[in-house]
Amino acid sequence: MNNRDIALLKKTDSEVILLSHSAAVLGWDQETYMPPSSVDERSRQLSLLSALVHERMTSETVKAVFSGIREFDEMEFAQEVSALDRAFARKFFDLYRKQSLLPASLVTELSRQASLTQHLWAKAREQNNFSLFSPELEKMVSLVRQKGECFGYEETLYDALLDEYEKGIKSSDLEKVFGKVEKRVKALLEKVLSAKQIDDSFLHGSFDPARQDQLGRKMLELLGYDLSRGRMDISAHPFTTTLGFSDVRITTHFKEDYFPAGLYSIIHECGHALYETGFGETLKDTCLAEGTSLGVHESQSRFWENIVGRGKGFSKLFWPLFSKAFPEAAGSRSFHDFFRAVNRVFPSLIRINADEVTYNLHIIMRYRLEKALVEGNIHVTDLPDAWNSMSEKLLGLKPDSNASGVLQDIHWSFGAIGYFPTYLLGNLYGAQFVSVMERKTGPVDDLAGSGNFRAILEWLRENIHRHGSVYTPDELIRLVTGEPLDPGFFLDYLDKKYAEVYRL
Amino acid sequence: MNNRDIALLKKTDSEVILLSHSAAVLGWDQETYMPPSSVDERSRQLSLLSALVHERMTSETVKAVFSGIREFDEMEFAQEVSALDRAFARKFFDLYRKQSLLPASLVTELSRQASLTQHLWAKAREQNNFSLFSPELEKMVSLVRQKGECFGYEETLYDALLDEYEKGIKSSDLEKVFGKVEKRVKALLEKVLSAKQIDDSFLHGSFDPARQDQLGRKMLELLGYDLSRGRMDISAHPFTTTLGFSDVRITTHFKEDYFPAGLYSIIHECGHALYETGFGETLKDTCLAEGTSLGVHESQSRFWENIVGRGKGFSKLFWPLFSKAFPEAAGSRSFHDFFRAVNRVFPSLIRINADEVTYNLHIIMRYRLEKALVEGNIHVTDLPDAWNSMSEKLLGLKPDSNASGVLQDIHWSFGAIGYFPTYLLGNLYGAQFVSVMERKTGPVDDLAGSGNFRAILEWLRENIHRHGSVYTPDELIRLVTGEPLDPGFFLDYLDKKYAEVYRL
Repeated sequence: MNNRDIALLKKTDSEVILLSHSAAVLGWDQETYMPPSSVDERSRQLSLLSALVHERMTSETVKAVFSGIREFDEMEFAQEVSALDRAFARKFFDLYRKQSLLPASLVTELSRQASLTQHLWAKAREQNNFSLFSPELEKMVSLVRQKGECFGYEETLYDALLDEYEKGIKSSDLEKVFGKVEKRVKALLEKVLSAKQIDDSFLHGSFDPARQDQLGRKMLELLGYDLSRGRMDISAHPFTTTLGFSDVRITTHFKEDYFPAGLYSIIHECGHALYETGFGETLKDTCLAEGTSLGVHESQSRFWENIVGRGKGFSKLFWPLFSKAFPEAAGSRSFHDFFRAVNRVFPSLIRINADEVTYNLHIIMRYRLEKALVEGNIHVTDLPDAWNSMSEKLLGLKPDSNASGVLQDIHWSFGAIGYFPTYLLGNLYGAQFVSVMERKTGPVDDLAGSGNFRAILEWLRENIHRHGSVYTPDELIRLVTGEPLDPGFFLDYLDKKYAEVYRL
Repeated sequence: MNNRDIALLKKTDSEVILLSHSAAVLGWDQETYMPPSSVDERSRQLSLLSALVHERMTSETVKAVFSGIREFDEMEFAQEVSALDRAFARKFFDLYRKQSLLPASLVTELSRQASLTQHLWAKAREQNNFSLFSPELEKMVSLVRQKGECFGYEETLYDALLDEYEKGIKSSDLEKVFGKVEKRVKALLEKVLSAKQIDDSFLHGSFDPARQDQLGRKMLELLGYDLSRGRMDISAHPFTTTLGFSDVRITTHFKEDYFPAGLYSIIHECGHALYETGFGETLKDTCLAEGTSLGVHESQSRFWENIVGRGKGFSKLFWPLFSKAFPEAAGSRSFHDFFRAVNRVFPSLIRINADEVTYNLHIIMRYRLEKALVEGNIHVTDLPDAWNSMSEKLLGLKPDSNASGVLQDIHWSFGAIGYFPTYLLGNLYGAQFVSVMERKTGPVDDLAGSGNFRAILEWLRENIHRHGSVYTPDELIRLVTGEPLDPGFFLDYLDKKYAEVYRL
């Protein structure tokens, strides 16, 4: 591989990026402003764009450059090729490999089945009727299994799927890590539940969405989200999307009857957006200008949401703004009440409403179920029972309906198996990064308390954001922290924080 | 040409439409919500999509189907081919011909020069500095001339350009028609100016945009614009755009200090949108599902804006809504005052602010100048003088600056020469259509007065909209009215209406 080859790949890559960002514009519009009648044509527009990406990624030019190479390790570089271009070739090869290993028929079938199953999932959840959904989920799981077989794996099929979302990690790694997390989180939960419970009723009530919006925008500004390179709109579920190197947008969703939902979704998405707007200029127009994995992405969003946003410092800074906007709710309370209320721990059935502690158990449960499912150790028809008994075991709660149990998440319906673990990995990476950050910046909580979010952002920019996908998650965590992933940082952080919150 | 050929063309066409509609999403976003930093990447995204359209339109498959055919008349159809498919083949061939006659280098050069010149135009207008703009306009005109030469023509180069916007019409037709319009409009203007002038000061003042927006949405609903197939947003300049067969959006722009600007821009764009949402289901996913020409498009927007919206009936219907929203402005006036005020005629320098009478003179002037320019009879450097003296001759006004003269319109800066005449043609088509419509529906003004817009829309749907591009403008006007374009209908309409408005 020489510089001429790199230039050929970069030409393709830059077109792929223009197409992908164009598709992101269509996707963003679909979730925010598109008139409902246009759903069908929009999905055909998106299919065509993704077929064009596939066409380009697997063109004769690209195939010729990669001819004879099955694994990245087999690639030989001419001396002239820079380290950055080698990282580019590695990332591009990974994308190429995934696109070219799947037969076009399977790609079409996966996308067709995904929209069908997703549609049925929504219906089944609404009607609390698992059997409406299960035959199509069965087909979806079988297609995902085929996809995994096409990608190939060393140890277990699940690894092939996981690799799409979290490059390089294996389920044998997850087993070790998640085992430790389960043990210590359960121990912490037990202590918390036997302590005096927290009253967060003042955060339930009636909170004018327009005033929530104002507060949210104020926070975005303070956190350093640049609105000349993005914007915030409303959608059914909050998300972040990248429509261009200088166009990273977030959405939110305000709950009129529960204040924290809107604020913390904004801070969460802001964390994603700060990552996506922080890639180095040298990565522009290449596939390196994206987050290196979903886990690292979640490390950014969850860090801002939980470690910063639900910290005591932030609560102190935010309290006067909250009290001014919602004086009745604030009453005679203090920032300390706010800090404790937004960190209230209580086992619940629904993952997306879960607190920072029990959330991890929700993920472990889904990981175990989806792995067993895709590897054929449980069947789709057994899922509701398996879900309910695992929920009882991990959370101490048994869903009273499938709608609040196995039907609650959209992920499996569109074939995203191997995705859930990245949420938990994000918590772990985040705390491990912070342990190093604080050596340089001092306590994050102090910075947040004095409104000095800039010092935090600068450290993230310098140590994480600017690298984009140059490093794999494993390389990045070693580069930044000097050691491999270690759940101890997050577990220590939880113990310390919740000892304070619950006065343990 | 047999059904197999038609199927091959339709396959390409449906992809071209998906790509074009995708590009429309990007274009809409750019004018409404896109963060400013993303201008450059967005223009690269749009260039790529238009290159993909070009690639598809001129693919080997398409070339093979049209092999040996230079003019549509040379095409021979198998008996099996339906009339609709023949119309499809004609329209598609026209698009193919235009794409394939231009060398790729000229396409690129036109698009590059267009964005450069457009950028300089905005600057030059802002700084009232024509010479900043003229060297690049010179290049733009020369490229447009090359484009015309590539397309070819029988009588004059200008016809080749006109054909892009108004299929089949020639400048020799325009000369005859515009000559009549000029003569009678000038005569009417003279009478109007010597009559007692109208006081429209109550429409200037302070009109809350949020209340204007409410009124505008109310009118959209009454006129029959289906918001489940479209939406209305704000942009610097109002426009209508089609993002899908079931997704046709409009934008508007409210002026706080002048009420009619917002309302009539909404009605105007609504007219375009009603056309674009009225194509027959059988045209879906083909190039026949678009307006047959810009002139016919303007016939719809101007009909709703001027003949309906500025009619006495509409004024009567609308007056109570206006009085309720803006009681201070309404005072003790009547709907009749409103009717007269929104039809006040006064020669002015700026086309987009011109009334229904003098507007035609603005267009005639631009038509004559652009024709002389592109055919080499005047030079770019002579334009300001030519503009000013023609303005004095036609409107009796000499611009006090180039910003309010030759620099006011964006069209030439991006190479749109041959476009202006369609605005006037729209007035003419509209009045001619109405003459036939009223035989069936009774006076439009009565229908509007009783809020029966549905009867109007049904006639338009049945006689004009559903045909899309099946007929050329000339065929359509003959089909609907039984005779070719005749400016007499519009001129009679003007005389009658303004005799009432000005009590002549």
